[in-house]
Amino acid sequence: MAIITIIGAGQMGSALAFVAGENGNIVRMVGTPHDKTLIDGFREGAEHPVFGRHFQENTEFYYTEQWQDAVKGSDFIVAGVSSYGIDWFLDEILMKLDAGIPVLSAAKGLTETEDGELISYPVYWERELLKKGIKRDIYALGGPGTADEIAHHDHTMVAVCGTDPAIREKISNSFNNSYFHVSTTSDVMGLEYSVAIKNAFALGVGIAIGYMSVKDEDKSRAHFNTQAAVFYQAAKEMSKLLESIGAEYNSLLIGLGDLYVTVSGARTRKIGILLGEGKTFEEAQEILGGITLESVVVVRRLYSSLKKREARGEVKLSDYPLLVYIVELLDGHKYQDLPWDKFKFDVR
Amino acid sequence: MAIITIIGAGQMGSALAFVAGENGNIVRMVGTPHDKTLIDGFREGAEHPVFGRHFQENTEFYYTEQWQDAVKGSDFIVAGVSSYGIDWFLDEILMKLDAGIPVLSAAKGLTETEDGELISYPVYWERELLKKGIKRDIYALGGPGTADEIAHHDHTMVAVCGTDPAIREKISNSFNNSYFHVSTTSDVMGLEYSVAIKNAFALGVGIAIGYMSVKDEDKSRAHFNTQAAVFYQAAKEMSKLLESIGAEYNSLLIGLGDLYVTVSGARTRKIGILLGEGKTFEEAQEILGGITLESVVVVRRLYSSLKKREARGEVKLSDYPLLVYIVELLDGHKYQDLPWDKFKFDVR
Repeated sequence: MAIITIIGAGQMGSALAFVAGENGNIVRMVGTPHDKTLIDGFREGAEHPVFGRHFQENTEFYYTEQWQDAVKGSDFIVAGVSSYGIDWFLDEILMKLDAGIPVLSAAKGLTETEDGELISYPVYWERELLKKGIKRDIYALGGPGTADEIAHHDHTMVAVCGTDPAIREKISNSFNNSYFHVSTTSDVMGLEYSVAIKNAFALGVGIAIGYMSVKDEDKSRAHFNTQAAVFYQAAKEMSKLLESIGAEYNSLLIGLGDLYVTVSGARTRKIGILLGEGKTFEEAQEILGGITLESVVVVRRLYSSLKKREARGEVKLSDYPLLVYIVELLDGHKYQDLPWDKFKFDVR
Repeated sequence: MAIITIIGAGQMGSALAFVAGENGNIVRMVGTPHDKTLIDGFREGAEHPVFGRHFQENTEFYYTEQWQDAVKGSDFIVAGVSSYGIDWFLDEILMKLDAGIPVLSAAKGLTETEDGELISYPVYWERELLKKGIKRDIYALGGPGTADEIAHHDHTMVAVCGTDPAIREKISNSFNNSYFHVSTTSDVMGLEYSVAIKNAFALGVGIAIGYMSVKDEDKSRAHFNTQAAVFYQAAKEMSKLLESIGAEYNSLLIGLGDLYVTVSGARTRKIGILLGEGKTFEEAQEILGGITLESVVVVRRLYSSLKKREARGEVKLSDYPLLVYIVELLDGHKYQDLPWDKFKFDVR
């Protein structure tokens, strides 16, 4: 049993509040400035509008300005902010937080440093804090877990990464239950990297489906052969990328599970198919209602990072023909078939 | 350009005849005793009944008893028989074939030796031939390639495995074209093992979907979290199994691409879902019309093999909790949730 403060009442923050609350922990949910109306509702006993379910009775609700009260006596804090809230969380919470309270990040995504290193938000926070003389190790939750399915008790397997085994264990014990399965790992960069880059490669499988669906007059075929071939190449390039940053093997495997469901799922698959059919990125984005496409952001960051690392002799872009193909399709819209010959291998 | 004799007019034999014929090779298709009516039709110019398309003009058709004529002057032979034709092909063709003509197997599947080793059909043939004093290396085509999609020009990536690099190259060159992408590898066992065992693990993902669909009142959810978690574990156990036989990394990756499409596809996914919903194997088989379920055969062979290998101290069954779970569900029908705790990791 722990006292857990979750900052951010969005989907992931709320889903984790459900899990932690069901496990008997005391949960203190703090809204960001954007969450004021949500917190108003929760305080009056309203259901969560997205999940259609109530929080546990052991959940308390705080407005942003009350965050210091919520944090008092907490065993750890959860950063449940989206990528837009990264700097807000850094400036308003992390800079002012008691150094003794561990922080767990549930934010997904990578950001690029000036010299082309792709780092996760927790690592970004650690570095920014260090610039101000604050030394803090941040923990993170990574893996394929959609908030909606967590909120509805789907079996979910994620991992907590971070430096101190005792803190990893404390966090995982608070969340572990019959449907939420939390592994632990010291491989911070590998895990975060793996679950972020899978979005880029999922796009590749979608593109191949779209390309084949134009080429084939019979629209009933699923093009499983083609999908399997691109999945092979995606797994190969993910594996190579993770190797290049010294990741641990479980982190790759978690990313492959995540790749599989991302390809099976809706959004990334759809934009991939539209691009594969010959739409430009702008056309595809318009068809999908102008939403931000995480996969596209990740592709561009990954490519930009690899170019800088190649200039330093750390990696070879020629090892990533699928990624390069996707970038060319996105940027120049050079509509063409995938570079199949580059996917072949010859093992002597 | 080569002269290629394909023995077996079934789906895979015919799909390869299309590819080889389109590439300008001379193709000699020989029917098995079961293919007599098919060969009758093809000789009269009939379409292939399954694919609805004609063979190329450079394709000639032979009845079983004419096989020696067909083989004369051929650059290599393709064994296009199903698992039921394995011993027929051994006794009637391989035992009598000119030692100088290479053989490529397109047969999928594994068979178990008495001491629990799981071997591919080509390896089985090699060993049986050796017992009669005939030394022959057999080549094999492995990877996710359904015959129907090959016949309709889907991009397909497979690999030729075998001992002599020059023969591997000759075979891959005959088949390689703009949609059929043939890699080459010396890892005979790894490749065949990988594409066979994926069937067992695909069943696991199906079972998890079925289990969740009973547990969740809302039938609209896809249970992506659960699927990703089982895919992680499937990839982990496949990886461990391939490591235990000294497989090369590309062979694992090919198997993972194949796992992905097998899970997305119809048959194995369906039986898995039925088992996960609580049906016994017999009930599931009846619902699916009594068809032979390759995945179930593979699960049982794999388990039987691992038990014998464990007794010799080569592997530990406790490293394969997903596989053991599937076997228990199939055999004793001990209907229960997956052993989630055993899937967790703790990387220090």
